[in-house]
Parts: sequence; C-alpha cells; structure tokens
Amino acid sequence: MPLPQSWLQQPPTPSQAHSELALARQQVLTKPPGSLGKLEQVAITLAGLSGSETPAVDPVRMVIFAGDHGVCAEGVSAFPQAVTAQMIANFAHGGAAISVMAKELNASLEVVNLGTVGEVPELPGVIDQVIAPSTANMAHTFAMTREQVEAALTSGDNAAERAKTAGCRLFIGGDMGIGNTTSASAIACALLGHSPQQLVGPGTGLNAEGVSRKAAVVEQALARHGDSKDPLTVLASLGGFELAGLVGAIMGSAARGIPVLVDGFIVSAAALIAVHQQPGVRDWLLFAHRSAEPGHNAVLEALEASPLLDLGMRLGEGSGAAVAVPLLRSACALHNHMASFADANISGKSEE
Amino acid sequence: MPLPQSWLQQPPTPSQAHSELALARQQVLTKPPGSLGKLEQVAITLAGLSGSETPAVDPVRMVIFAGDHGVCAEGVSAFPQAVTAQMIANFAHGGAAISVMAKELNASLEVVNLGTVGEVPELPGVIDQVIAPSTANMAHTFAMTREQVEAALTSGDNAAERAKTAGCRLFIGGDMGIGNTTSASAIACALLGHSPQQLVGPGTGLNAEGVSRKAAVVEQALARHGDSKDPLTVLASLGGFELAGLVGAIMGSAARGIPVLVDGFIVSAAALIAVHQQPGVRDWLLFAHRSAEPGHNAVLEALEASPLLDLGMRLGEGSGAAVAVPLLRSACALHNHMASFADANISGKSEE
Repeated sequence: MPLPQSWLQQPPTPSQAHSELALARQQVLTKPPGSLGKLEQVAITLAGLSGSETPAVDPVRMVIFAGDHGVCAEGVSAFPQAVTAQMIANFAHGGAAISVMAKELNASLEVVNLGTVGEVPELPGVIDQVIAPSTANMAHTFAMTREQVEAALTSGDNAAERAKTAGCRLFIGGDMGIGNTTSASAIACALLGHSPQQLVGPGTGLNAEGVSRKAAVVEQALARHGDSKDPLTVLASLGGFELAGLVGAIMGSAARGIPVLVDGFIVSAAALIAVHQQPGVRDWLLFAHRSAEPGHNAVLEALEASPLLDLGMRLGEGSGAAVAVPLLRSACALHNHMASFADANISGKSEE
Repeated sequence: MPLPQSWLQQPPTPSQAHSELALARQQVLTKPPGSLGKLEQVAITLAGLSGSETPAVDPVRMVIFAGDHGVCAEGVSAFPQAVTAQMIANFAHGGAAISVMAKELNASLEVVNLGTVGEVPELPGVIDQVIAPSTANMAHTFAMTREQVEAALTSGDNAAERAKTAGCRLFIGGDMGIGNTTSASAIACALLGHSPQQLVGPGTGLNAEGVSRKAAVVEQALARHGDSKDPLTVLASLGGFELAGLVGAIMGSAARGIPVLVDGFIVSAAALIAVHQQPGVRDWLLFAHRSAEPGHNAVLEALEASPLLDLGMRLGEGSGAAVAVPLLRSACALHNHMASFADANISGKSEE
C-alpha cells in the first residue's frame, strides 16, 4: 500500500485575504476591540481556513481510531488491554464520553478499529480496518512494519476523504488504545529530545511506582530506537495503529481544506508527527485543551499552541476537543451575527 | 421600598445527599476516575444545587441590568456615556454579543433598564425600571440613596422571581453601564482592602494615562467613603444601579434555589457584595471565566473561585458566562448519559 498523497505534499495555504477581512470586521463589531479575547482569533483563523467571511464549523465529524499496543506486556497501563475492544462496543452503544458528546453536539461519530487483542463483533458505526491484533512491543522491536504504518495512514486519510464527501467543516480525531500514552510519550521524546522522566505521566491512573516503570520502558524503547527524527521511522518504531491513523487523518483533513480541532496528548503527538512531515499542516490545526497528562505541555509548546480550555481533562477519545466545539461555534456566531457600530448607530471610542 | 427577603436571610442549603450520589456515580462511569477534570465537579455541584441525580441547566435565563454612572464626569471610560442607552437598543435588536449568544444557546434574554443618560425608547424585551438618569458622582458623594439601592435590589430580586416562575434552572446576570469597572474596582477595594493601583484596569480600553486617572478617581471615592465594609453602605456609596440590580438578582436566584453562573469583573463584584451580606449565597455560584480586567483576579481569589474559562474576554453583558454555558451542558450530559463499567461490561482498573 503506497503512502497517501497528503503525506507527500504540503496542504493548501489558508486564505490570507479572508483572515484580513475577518480581522477588519472584528474591529467594527459593537464591543471594545479585542474584548472577545481568543474567540476573535478563532473566528479570524477559521475565516482564513474556510476562505469565507462568515466561517462555520458544522457539520462536525468525529473519528475515533482504536488499536492495541504490544508494549502493554511491560505493565505500562492502569487498565487491562481488554478494555480497548470493550470500549469500541461502548462507543457503538452510546455509553462512552465521546458518544454522549457527539449526540449532545449533533456531530457525526465514526469508530475505526485498526486492531485489538479482544474480539470486536460487528457493530453499527464501527469500521473494521484491522491491521493486526496489536502492534509489536516497542521496548524490544519496531512497533509496526512499514506496511502496517502505510495501512494505518491510509485508513486515516480515508476518514478525511469521507468527512470531505460529507461536507464536514471541522474534523476531530480521537484515540482509544490502552498503553497509548506510553507510545505518545516515546514519540514526543524522540522528536523533541526530552527525557522520559520529563514527559511520562500517569495516563489512565498509574501510581508513582507505575509511572517510574513506564518511564523506564520508554527509555528502553528510545535506546533501541536511536536518534532518528524521520517521521515515518519514528511512527513505525514507537507508534501505535491509532496514532498512525490519527496522523493520516490530520494530514488528510489539512490536504482537503478541513480544519482540525486537536484533542489532548495522544492526538497532539500525532499532530507533531504530521507537522514534522509537512510543516504546512500546522496552519490547519486549532487546539482544544491542555490535558492533565504532563507530556502534553511539551508537545503544545513545540507546536506553539495555546489551547482554548484547561479543565484538567485526561480522558482521550477526542473528548476534550468535543467539549471545545461550542467555543468555535460561539466564535463564529459572534463574528457572523453581531452588529457593527455603524449598523447599530453606536458611538465609538472617545479620543484620548 | 423595603429590602427583598433574599437580602435578609440565608439561601437554602444545597443537597449534600445528591452531591454524594453524584460523586459516587462519577467513580463508576466508563472513564478513568477524575479524567473529566473540572466537568466532574460541575456535575457534582449542580446535582447538589438541583437536588437531582440527573442535573440540568436548561432553561437558561439571562438578564442584563443597565444603568449609567455619575462618575463618568471624571473621564474614567474610553467610551462616551451615550453608549449605555445605545447598547440597550442593540440588545433589543439582536446585534450585541449577548443577544447573539442568547439565540445561539436558545436562552431567554431580558434587559432591565435602571436608568440611562441617553433616552431609551420602548423596545421589545426591555423592561423599564428607571430609577434616575444616572447615579451621582461617587468621587464626591454617595452614588445612590438608600431608596435607590432598595429599588435596584428589588428589581434584581424580581428578575429572579420571573426566572423561577419560568422554570429556569440557571441564572446569568449581565451588565451594561459605561463607567462600571470604576465602580466595581472601588467596591472590590472597599471590601477587600486592596489599593486602587492594584485593581484598576483599562476597562473598555483606556491607555496608561487613563488608567492612572481612573485609579486616582477611585482613590478619591474611597477616601470619601471611609472604611465601612457594610454591604448596603458600600453599594450605596460606590455602586451603580446595574451593580445593585445584579446583587439583588444573584441573591434572589440563590434564595429561590436557582444556580447562578457568574460572568466577569462586574458580576463578580456584585457577587462579592452578595456573599458579604449572606455567606450562604456562595454555594449557589459557579464561575464562568477569568476576565482580562486585572481586578477580577482579586475578587475571584476572595470568593475562592476557579473559573472554567480563561479566554482573555473583557466585554461584560454576561458574555463570558454565556460562552461557558455549553460546558455546563456537557458536564450534565456526560454525567447523566455515560454508561457505567458494570452497564457496559468493561473491565476496571488493574490492581497495582
């Protein structure tokens, strides 16, 4: 399977003209200039990305990529590996956080199963693109073969294509994979040069002893990996199926002109790989929230990202991005529907 | 006009039993415990306030109190005083930020006109409860008479009564009044003992020279005021009509068992007075956002409040609270509709 086009070329450049029009509009709306804070910048950014003076984010597409991690053999997670497959069923039955949020927000939700140790029956809304039951154990060997990486990237790219076909104007990727904060930490260390002690955290809820063990496992994987920063090598060596799927979906969305609202640590690690491969992808990313997982700060800093929310969330599934969707909707509504000082016959700022 | 009952007695005590049930439920939902961060505490708080295992915030009522400030004669605002009346018309015509948000959120919006220098024609959705064209200039004299304070408090209490009658489950107060960050800064200084230099900020957009002038005016008002921390005296001496209306509305909502989502600096200053008068009011307050106006931090700290959002907003009108409403809805939806580990047959945390 070849690499997707979106891996091989820069995404389009956002419309500077529409960003400038939006910036000018923000100055004449009936409010003190700048008083909507970050919501003004969100509207300006979305105007440039959508090439429209009246930006919008609906319809919103959410896609969760699920996959299991061979590194779980090292005891790196507070939850058993069976949970990955069990949660896929929970997504399909509407009981998971992201399922509740998709319904609450009237967003469409897809689940892409890239391979789990537990068995997954046929389920509505779950797309079966199983690569293998699990990645290999990155502490000892490459997590994925080149062919597996290509399959996962292509799966993500296909998800972006479906979103484009459905006319979606915002893409949210989510993750499910017991053990994936271990993989994301290793990726961040490899690309940013941080030590595992700086970045590894409790994930779903390890105690201090567990965090130490996890950091040691990441250290072992990094020693095996060496110092390559080549995105494809990093992904194959330290990644997971769902992480590669997310990279493909992020790059595929950017390539097709769909803005991406980035969730927490896992999705940000995928975004980091995407931006290392094609720096222009960065333009297409908005950042939803700052995760409680400590490694997220380092990834956000590297991406020069200042997320909208800081609620101490650390759930994954794209849930932090989902919670931030109404902020984007509010930013667009205010930008598109507020009156100008001239329209409303309101006196402007006094001369000082 | 007598003081409202809600000024004279403690509000009801939230249901500890329902908060405990909600806390227990958060532990068994299909997510790592604690992983929804502040959204978990929001759901637990709302369960206690609503006395329900399945909390909800809809219907949401928003009420903007508008009034002019005599202290504007001292040149404390970047915008001319005529804007207060002009903005009332903008609220009614749907062009203001809070009007757009009310529509976006499907919330009901009322505007209570307590008195403006500019003329306000009859307008749909605007309730005429004019006390006087403006408060007196607090730099030289009490801003309000005792009768004026009572009228404004009663107007606020009546707004809470209307919200109760309409079955509303969340109250948002908003402010409109050129000059009101000067008044709110003076109130915060009087109650908290801070200096004007610490708390006074640019408001709608003063430059550094303007901020210095404004701080000097607040200092003058505080020197005249003396050291009384009696809430009624502070309000009469340093307050505004819309600030007193907000105090009445906050206390009236708490008294009637309606949770209040507190907006930025102005509404928080009103909440500070309310809590000084009846400490039990604090239980009924949720805090939406941290304003860019510097005095807000001091008020939040005094109220031991940790707001949900920090977007650099500083618009007033209740707009920051409006933007936070979807976070409360998300917290309730997640709490009420997620599956438990037992329901979804999902394995729990491993023994460590």
